[in-house]
Amino acid sequence: MANLKDIGVSAAINLLSAFAFLVVFAILRIQPVNDRVYFPKWYRKGVRSSPTHSGTFANKFVNLDLRTYLRFLNWMPDALKMPESELVDHAGLDSVAYLRIYLLGLKIFVPLAILAFVVLVPINWTGKTLEHATNVSFSDIDKLSISNIPAGSKRLYAHTIMSYVFTLWAFYVLRNEYKMIADMRLRFLASQNRRPDQFTVLVRNIPPDPDESVSEHVQHFFCVNHPDHYLTHQVVYNANKLAQLVENKKSLRNWLTYYKNTYERTSKKPTTKTGFWGLWGTRVDAIDYYTAEINKLTEEENAEREKVISDANSIIPAAFVSFKSRWGAAVCAQTQQSRNPTIWLTNWAPEPRDIFWDNLSIPYVELTIRRLLMAVSLFALIFFFMIPIAFVQSLANIEGIQKVLPFLKPLIDFGFVKSFIQGFLPGIALKIFLILLPLILMTMSKIEGFTSLSSLEKRSAGKYYLFILFNVFLGSIVTGTALQQLNTFLNEPPTEIPKTFGVSIPMKATFFITYTMVDGWAGIAAEIIRLVPLVIFHLKNTFLVKTDQDRDEAMDPGYLRFGTNEPRIQFYILLGLVYAPVTPILLPFIIVFFAFSYVVFRHQVINVYDQIYESGAAFWPDVHRRIIINLIISQLLLMGLLSTRKADKSTPLLILLPVITIWFHVYCKGRFEPAFVTFPLQEAMVKDTLERATEPNLNLRTYLQDAYVHPVFKGIQEQNPPAVEEEEDSSPLVATKRRNWNASKNESDASSKAGSGTGQ
Amino acid sequence: MANLKDIGVSAAINLLSAFAFLVVFAILRIQPVNDRVYFPKWYRKGVRSSPTHSGTFANKFVNLDLRTYLRFLNWMPDALKMPESELVDHAGLDSVAYLRIYLLGLKIFVPLAILAFVVLVPINWTGKTLEHATNVSFSDIDKLSISNIPAGSKRLYAHTIMSYVFTLWAFYVLRNEYKMIADMRLRFLASQNRRPDQFTVLVRNIPPDPDESVSEHVQHFFCVNHPDHYLTHQVVYNANKLAQLVENKKSLRNWLTYYKNTYERTSKKPTTKTGFWGLWGTRVDAIDYYTAEINKLTEEENAEREKVISDANSIIPAAFVSFKSRWGAAVCAQTQQSRNPTIWLTNWAPEPRDIFWDNLSIPYVELTIRRLLMAVSLFALIFFFMIPIAFVQSLANIEGIQKVLPFLKPLIDFGFVKSFIQGFLPGIALKIFLILLPLILMTMSKIEGFTSLSSLEKRSAGKYYLFILFNVFLGSIVTGTALQQLNTFLNEPPTEIPKTFGVSIPMKATFFITYTMVDGWAGIAAEIIRLVPLVIFHLKNTFLVKTDQDRDEAMDPGYLRFGTNEPRIQFYILLGLVYAPVTPILLPFIIVFFAFSYVVFRHQVINVYDQIYESGAAFWPDVHRRIIINLIISQLLLMGLLSTRKADKSTPLLILLPVITIWFHVYCKGRFEPAFVTFPLQEAMVKDTLERATEPNLNLRTYLQDAYVHPVFKGIQEQNPPAVEEEEDSSPLVATKRRNWNASKNESDASSKAGSGTGQ
Repeated sequence: MANLKDIGVSAAINLLSAFAFLVVFAILRIQPVNDRVYFPKWYRKGVRSSPTHSGTFANKFVNLDLRTYLRFLNWMPDALKMPESELVDHAGLDSVAYLRIYLLGLKIFVPLAILAFVVLVPINWTGKTLEHATNVSFSDIDKLSISNIPAGSKRLYAHTIMSYVFTLWAFYVLRNEYKMIADMRLRFLASQNRRPDQFTVLVRNIPPDPDESVSEHVQHFFCVNHPDHYLTHQVVYNANKLAQLVENKKSLRNWLTYYKNTYERTSKKPTTKTGFWGLWGTRVDAIDYYTAEINKLTEEENAEREKVISDANSIIPAAFVSFKSRWGAAVCAQTQQSRNPTIWLTNWAPEPRDIFWDNLSIPYVELTIRRLLMAVSLFALIFFFMIPIAFVQSLANIEGIQKVLPFLKPLIDFGFVKSFIQGFLPGIALKIFLILLPLILMTMSKIEGFTSLSSLEKRSAGKYYLFILFNVFLGSIVTGTALQQLNTFLNEPPTEIPKTFGVSIPMKATFFITYTMVDGWAGIAAEIIRLVPLVIFHLKNTFLVKTDQDRDEAMDPGYLRFGTNEPRIQFYILLGLVYAPVTPILLPFIIVFFAFSYVVFRHQVINVYDQIYESGAAFWPDVHRRIIINLIISQLLLMGLLSTRKADKSTPLLILLPVITIWFHVYCKGRFEPAFVTFPLQEAMVKDTLERATEPNLNLRTYLQDAYVHPVFKGIQEQNPPAVEEEEDSSPLVATKRRNWNASKNESDASSKAGSGTGQ
Repeated sequence: MANLKDIGVSAAINLLSAFAFLVVFAILRIQPVNDRVYFPKWYRKGVRSSPTHSGTFANKFVNLDLRTYLRFLNWMPDALKMPESELVDHAGLDSVAYLRIYLLGLKIFVPLAILAFVVLVPINWTGKTLEHATNVSFSDIDKLSISNIPAGSKRLYAHTIMSYVFTLWAFYVLRNEYKMIADMRLRFLASQNRRPDQFTVLVRNIPPDPDESVSEHVQHFFCVNHPDHYLTHQVVYNANKLAQLVENKKSLRNWLTYYKNTYERTSKKPTTKTGFWGLWGTRVDAIDYYTAEINKLTEEENAEREKVISDANSIIPAAFVSFKSRWGAAVCAQTQQSRNPTIWLTNWAPEPRDIFWDNLSIPYVELTIRRLLMAVSLFALIFFFMIPIAFVQSLANIEGIQKVLPFLKPLIDFGFVKSFIQGFLPGIALKIFLILLPLILMTMSKIEGFTSLSSLEKRSAGKYYLFILFNVFLGSIVTGTALQQLNTFLNEPPTEIPKTFGVSIPMKATFFITYTMVDGWAGIAAEIIRLVPLVIFHLKNTFLVKTDQDRDEAMDPGYLRFGTNEPRIQFYILLGLVYAPVTPILLPFIIVFFAFSYVVFRHQVINVYDQIYESGAAFWPDVHRRIIINLIISQLLLMGLLSTRKADKSTPLLILLPVITIWFHVYCKGRFEPAFVTFPLQEAMVKDTLERATEPNLNLRTYLQDAYVHPVFKGIQEQNPPAVEEEEDSSPLVATKRRNWNASKNESDASSKAGSGTGQ
C-alpha cells in the first residue's frame, strides 16, 4: 500500500507534468502562427484579425518578444477577470452554467474538506487501531481514514453525524445553485432580443390527410384551433440526401484546392487515381478530375434540390408553426392539441441551429420502440462491453498475428518488439473503445429520436454517466467488470452489497487519488494544449488555405462537449462525496481538480470554444439529478461501510439520509425544474406587451420568414425557401379543399384510428 | 393438503351460502318497506315514489303477492339489460368504467382459462412426478399444477411459451380497453351539457400581495395574463369551522325531531341529561333543551358566517377562475403562469361537488413535506402494522383482563366464556384494524393535500393496493408479516427472493381458492344485502322520519367505494395472473368472482348507488398501471418458480417479459394517459364554436356566478355568495391600488423570494 510519501512523490510528478503542459501551452499560445488555434472565439466574433499582417517575416510565425515569455502564466488571472454577466453575453448561458458546475464542486467540497480535516482527521488519527494491529500492513493515509477506528467504537458516531452535516450542506449549496441557475435562465430568456424560437412551436406527427397537403393541413388546423394567435408556418423537407451531397461537394472542393495549391507551388501537374481514396484505378490529372467531379455533383445537387422542393413526398409530417405573440407560442407549446395525444405533438421549438433535422419525422410508435431498443442496448453496452473487447484481445495476441501475417515473424521475434506488442496490444482495443464510446453513445441518442442537438448531448451525458458509474467507479472498488458485479450482486443479499463495497472503499483511496491526478489533472492540462486541433489547423493551413476566408474556415474552435465532460465531473463529485466521511485526505486532490478545471475551462470558454447551440442551461436539472444520485450512492456505501465496522447503533441513524435526499430531490424538481421546461405565460406577456409598445409596426411575418429553413437551403445559394414563397401568396383565409366539414371530421377520426391501429 | 373433493365440498358450501344470501336479498328487496334501501337511486332521480301510498296497510310493509317470490332471481337479467350508453346517462361514466374493470377481468381470464385447460392441464396431468414420488403427500389439484412436472423437464417450455401468450393476450385486452375508456371519456366530456368546470380553473398558491386583496390580485393577474379570455373568479373562504357548526346543528335537529316524535307517540315529556352524550349532568326537558341549543348554535353560525364573509383573513390564497371559453380555460389549466412554478398553480377545476374544500390552501413546501411524511407513514403502516396490534393483543389476554378488572374473575373462570375470549380477543384487534384501514388510508390521503374527492379516492386505492399486495398476497405465500418478509429479503440475494416465493406458490393454490370463495363470493353476496344501510334506514325511519322529505333524507344510497373495492379486484387479477401458468384450476373460481361481481355491482349501480362526484373515469390510468404491476409480479414469480424447477434453459427466455411489459406501459401511458389529464384544445374549440353558434346570447357570467361557492353558503339560506356581489359591480378594468408598476414588480419579486425562502 502506498503511504503518504508515495502519494506525495506521485503528486509532485503529476504536478510537474501538468506544469510542463502549461509551459508548453504558454509558449505555443503566444506564437502568432498558433493564434487561430488558441483564440478562435475572438476571430469568430470578428474582434481579432490575423497577427500575421504586420511585423517582420519571422514575427509572423514565431514570437520573438522575450518579455511575453516571462509572463507565461498571465492567462490564468486573465481567464478569471471577465465578470460573469459579460461572460454570458460573450459565450452564452450554456457555457457559464457549465463553468458553474466546477464552482459548485468547490462550494461543496472546500467547506467539507475543512470540516473533515478539523473534525474527522483528528478522530481517525487518534483511533490507533492500526498501530496495535501488527499483522496488517498500513500506511499513513490509512491512519487518517476510518480504517484507524476500532470496530464498534463510539467514535463512529462522529462519522454518522458528519455525514448528516455533509448532506445538509450539499442540500444548501445545491438548492441555492439551482435557484441561481433558474433565475439566470429566466433573466437570460427575458433579456434576449427577439428570437425566432420565442414565437415558434415545433409540431410533429402531423396526421396524413387525403385531401390536403401537409402545409394546408397545418394551416387549417392552427387557423381553427388558435385563431387569434396563428401567424405562419414552415414545413420541413426531408433534405438529408441533399445535405449529404453538399457535404461531399465540400470535401471534393478541399481536394481541388489542395491540388491547385500543389500545382502553384511545384509547377508540376498533380495526378490522382480514380479509385477509392485515390489508392487505385487509372491515373488522371487531379485538377481536371476534381473539377469534373464537382461539376457532376453540382448538377446532381441541383436536381435533388428541385426534387425536394417539388415533390410532395419529401415534405415530412412535421412543421414549425409561428405565432403572432410569444404568449400564443407558449400556450401552443404547453397544451395538448388533439384528442389523440400522439398526433399534433407540440414542443417549444429549439433554436434554428440547435435542430437535429434527421429526427423530425419519427412517428410515435416507432419512437417508443426505438427508446426500448436503446435502453436494452445501453444495458448490454454497460454490462457486456468487455466481451467483444476480450474477443478482439484474444485475437490480437502475438501468436494470432504470426499466423495471419507470417512474414512479420522475424520482426516479432525480436525481443523488444515482442514485449512492446504484448504489453501494448491488449490495451489498445480497450483504449480505442473508450475513445469511441462518446461517439457510440451519441449515435444511440440519435437513434432514440431526439430533435435537438442540446437534448442529444443531454441524453449522451446520462448514458456516459451510467457507464462511468458502473465500470469506472464501482468497477474499481470491487475490481471487476460491471457484468461480474451484476452476477455477484444478483446472488448476494441486498444488504450485503453496500457491505462488499464498504469494506473495499477505504482500501481504494490511494488508487483514486492517483486516478484523480493522472486522469483529472493531466487530462485538464492536455485539454488546454488542444493538440489535435493544433495539428489539424496547421495541416489545413499548409495545404488548403489560400485566402483569409479559407483560413477562417480552417479554424476549429470546437465547443464544450457537455456529453463527455459533465459525466467526468460527476465522477469526481461522487468520489468526493463517498470519501468525505471515510478518507478525507482525498478531498484536497479533488478540490485542486475543480479549481484547475475551472480556470482552464474558463480560459477556453473565453478564448476558444464557439458553442454550436444555446439551450439556456437546459441541462441543469440533469446535473442536479445526478448529484442527488451521487449523494444517495455515497450514503448507501457509508451505511454498508459502517455496518461492517460493527457500528450497529449508528448505522440505522443513516437510513433517514436517503429518504430525505429523495424528498429534497422531489422538492427541487417541483420548485425549479419547470423553469427549464416551460415558458411562463407571465414572462411571455410582459415581453409581448413591451414589444408592442416599443415596436408597433414590426412585421413579424417577414422576420420569421426563413428562420426555420433547413441549412442546405439557406447556405449556398441564398435562394428563398420554397415554403415561404407558397406562404406569401396565401391569404389568411385559405379556401379548404375538403368536401365538407362532416366528411373531413369522419376522415380525421379515421386517420386517428389508423394512427392508433399501427400501435398494436 | 386439500384434494379436489375437499375443494368441491368447500365450493358447494360457499355457493350455498352465497345462494342463501341471494334468497334473503330477493325476499327483502320486494318488501315495500325496504324499497328505499334497495332502490334509492330511482328515488334520488325522482322517477320512483313511495309504494306505501297505495294498497292495504299490510301491503305497505310486506309484499303479499306470492308470484313475485317465485321470480326472485329476476333482478339478475334486469341488471344486465340496461345498455351501456343508457347506463352512462343514468349513473355516470365513473360507475360504467368501474364495472368495466370486472368485464376486463373476464376478458382476460376466460380465454386464459380455456387456453390453460386445453394446453397446460394435460401437460401437467401427464407429468406423473407426484405419482412416482412416494414420500410426499399430494392432492388431485397438485396433479393439475406445475408441481406434477419433473424438475428439468422439457415440458416446462410449454409454461414459458404460455406465459408469453398470456402476457400478449393481456396486452391486447388492456390496450383495447384503455383505448375504449379513453374514447368513452372524451365522448362523455364532449357530449356533456355546459358545465361550470369546463370553464373554470382552480388556482392555488396565490402569492400574498401587500397592496391588494386576494380577489383583486387574482383579477389583475388574469386580466393581464389572459386578457382575451378571463371572465370572472370566485375566491375561496375558509369555512371549515362554519361547516362544522352546520354539521353540529343538523345532528341537534335530528335529536330534536327524535324527542318530538317520542313526545307525540307517548304523550310524555322526554327528558335528557346535559352532559356528554346525554349520559350524565342535570336532567332537563329534552325538547326545550335542544330547541335552545339549536337557537344558540344558529346565532353562533350566523356570527361565524358574518365573520367569514367580512374578514379578509378568512379568504384563503386559492380561487376558482372562470374564462369566457372552454379554450381559454383549457389553456390556463395546462400552462405555467408565473416564473416561480410554485405559485399561481393552475389545474382544471374539479366538479363543484367533487371539491375537498379543506385542502385548498396548503402552500407548496408544506405539501412536499406532507407527502414525505405520508410516504414514510405508509411504509410504516405496511411493514409495522402488526406491532401495535400484537401489543394490544398481548394486553387483551385473559390474565390482563383479570388484573385490570378483577371483579370479572368469576365470570372469566367459567369455561365457555374463557375459551370464547381466548379464541376471539386476539382476532378482534386485527379485525377492527382491518375495518378501520380504509378510513386510515383516506385520512392519510387527506393529509397529503389533494383537492378533490376523486383524487383522494384514487390515492387511497393506491395505498390499499400496496397493503393488500404485501400483507395479504405476499404475506400468505410466505406466511409471515410484511416486516418478516422485509427482514428475510434484505438478507437474501435478489435472485433468491422470487425463488422463495416460487417454491411456495403451487402449495398455496388451495388456500387462495378457499380465500376467493370466502372473501370474494360471500363478500359480494353480503354487499348486495346492504345490511348496515338496511338497519340504519329502519332505525331512522322509526325515530326521525315525519314527512316524505325526512324519509328521503334518511335514505343512504351510498356510492361505489373505489378506494376499497378496486384494490380488491386488483388482488384477484394478481391471483389469476400468478396462477394461470402454475395452477390453472384456480382460474374458474376467479372467473366466477368476476362474473358474479359484475352482475351484483351492475344491479347496485342501476338501483342503489348515487355517486357523490363524477370524474369521467379519471381513475383508469391507475387501474391500468396496477394491472401492469400485477403482470410484472406474476412474471418475476414465474421466473423464480421455474428456476427452482431446474428449467435453466427456459428461465432466461422469461427475462424479456418484464422488459416488454414495462415498454408496453410506457407506450400506453404516452398514448392514452393525456386523455385523462388534459383537455385537448381541439375538443374545447369545437364545443366553443358550436355553443357560440347555437346560443349566441348566453350570459356565461350569470351561469358561472355561484357555481363554485362553498356548500355551506349555498345550502340552507340560498343567500348570494359574498364574492359574487363584490364581482357584480366591478368593471372589467379595475383601477389598481398599487403605487406604480415598478414598485409592484419589485414587491412581487420580493414576495416570490420570500415564498422561496420558506423552502430552505
